[in-house]
Amino acid sequence: MLDFFNQVRDDLGVVEREIKSVVQSRDPLLTQTSMHLLDAGGKRLRPAFALLAGKLYDYSLDKLLPLAVALELIHMASLVHDDVVDDSLTRRGTPTVKANWGNKISMHTGDYLFAKSLVLISNYENPVISKVLAETSVKMCEGEIHQISTAYSASQNWRDYFYRIERKTALLIAASCQLGAVAAGAPESEARRLYRFGHQIGMAFQITDDILDMVAEQQKLGKPIGGDLRQGILTMPVIYSLERSSQRERLKELVEIKEKTDEQVREAIDIIKASGGIDYSFEAARRYIDKAKNNLSYLPDKPIKQVFYQIADFIGIRRF
Amino acid sequence: MLDFFNQVRDDLGVVEREIKSVVQSRDPLLTQTSMHLLDAGGKRLRPAFALLAGKLYDYSLDKLLPLAVALELIHMASLVHDDVVDDSLTRRGTPTVKANWGNKISMHTGDYLFAKSLVLISNYENPVISKVLAETSVKMCEGEIHQISTAYSASQNWRDYFYRIERKTALLIAASCQLGAVAAGAPESEARRLYRFGHQIGMAFQITDDILDMVAEQQKLGKPIGGDLRQGILTMPVIYSLERSSQRERLKELVEIKEKTDEQVREAIDIIKASGGIDYSFEAARRYIDKAKNNLSYLPDKPIKQVFYQIADFIGIRRF
Repeated sequence: MLDFFNQVRDDLGVVEREIKSVVQSRDPLLTQTSMHLLDAGGKRLRPAFALLAGKLYDYSLDKLLPLAVALELIHMASLVHDDVVDDSLTRRGTPTVKANWGNKISMHTGDYLFAKSLVLISNYENPVISKVLAETSVKMCEGEIHQISTAYSASQNWRDYFYRIERKTALLIAASCQLGAVAAGAPESEARRLYRFGHQIGMAFQITDDILDMVAEQQKLGKPIGGDLRQGILTMPVIYSLERSSQRERLKELVEIKEKTDEQVREAIDIIKASGGIDYSFEAARRYIDKAKNNLSYLPDKPIKQVFYQIADFIGIRRF
Repeated sequence: MLDFFNQVRDDLGVVEREIKSVVQSRDPLLTQTSMHLLDAGGKRLRPAFALLAGKLYDYSLDKLLPLAVALELIHMASLVHDDVVDDSLTRRGTPTVKANWGNKISMHTGDYLFAKSLVLISNYENPVISKVLAETSVKMCEGEIHQISTAYSASQNWRDYFYRIERKTALLIAASCQLGAVAAGAPESEARRLYRFGHQIGMAFQITDDILDMVAEQQKLGKPIGGDLRQGILTMPVIYSLERSSQRERLKELVEIKEKTDEQVREAIDIIKASGGIDYSFEAARRYIDKAKNNLSYLPDKPIKQVFYQIADFIGIRRF
């Protein structure tokens, strides 16, 4: 686990056990697919953000637990549905639910995890929590559909990209920060600041993820390099290069090929690197980090606040 | 529209317009797939039940509208996910979302409709509404997975059958009756009675549906006869015949064939009819109807209550 989660480490252990307990179903197959997903690991970032945000206010694990578990379930549900969509055969180096059980079971496992999150959320009296998560879920679906309907089109532009990564990643991280604070009784204006903080580090996180998909070592990435390109998803470095590279016509051709060879993926990445698309994207992520940190000055001056600065800095420099 | 819905006909028109308005997305493809589903029609039973239940208490359309719309969206979401699962190419005689747009888009359209229902539900302060719908959604998923994991097995038994039809149909109709009453301020004990009424007519409704899948005219059914048998789903008439028919060994063989010819489907249905499986199942549906009606005596004696008796009787005798 990442060091700056130390202050919520024990409570994240409780969250982990609670997730495992919550997904137990009367149906043995559902229990099995859900446990498979859980055992595949994950950083549990969203529960961690919710707990840390709660620590800035009137923290109690009892109040935060259902929310923290629900956030991870929503995230897992979206991953398992992504796997159906992307025809992915591995995630984090282990076989996906889809690879083991097929599309049908994956879809219903995702539905099940999502529905379980709703049961947890229905325990909160504050309507903000269910409202924000419902609206976030709607937008996450919009993002997925947008990704499918624009795939392999070289006309994907900056606006498409920001629309998609906001929905894919930033909104749920924003909600995690905001609602952790809400559940711990934060004033509305400060919860909004945490929402913005989460949104901006979420954008930076996804931009970095998209960069790493091109430049990381395959072993650290746990999946083949250039996965987005292979799926026709244009990320920031590509969009930048399609505008700026002297070889943009060739890159456009490569992008639009539906079944790319490894050689073609490598050629595209080389063009992108040479055009400065990677450096530009790292710089864009850094700017989001700076904006994220600006929000923190409006929050209570508790020692835990330093952790938010550390997380922001970490996301700006992470290379795995 | 069915006659006994006369007293909520105008308000169902408002529900219909509201559904159409709610599913509009910033994403044109999502709007298109959702509208396609809506235009395919449907009886809007669940909104109708919610409004009728509300009429027994302190009715106002404003209070009931978000619930009525949400119930239909949840139902539609489950249908579109069913279509992914069943490889259905038509529903109610028109092409499914899956047939036109493929599995991926269907799955996300279902997710989107479901998420939209949550936004509506999050407007209610009474936590019972979101809690019941969340728990219902969990169970609906369990039912789907159970159906997949038992398909084509001749060992499907009565318990499997009741487990599945409760989750597939009865629980959401039960919730529609119960929550329509809750939203209109019904006392808890009476809302529970309406829940039971809905549960029992829902069971009867699904048993009748399952019978009609074998004996209806294909034209009225809007899909080929014997669809459940083709998908390996054993319904009440089949389970009865597998126990009672003198030709049960042959029926068992037929049930377990994965790609049945029309001839084999016809042979299976003939065995089932000859064993009395159809008559037995109609009788079982009738018993549920009687139980359902018993609950009504505990409800307020308003003229609208007659409609509930009429609905129950109609479900018992419907042949389409």
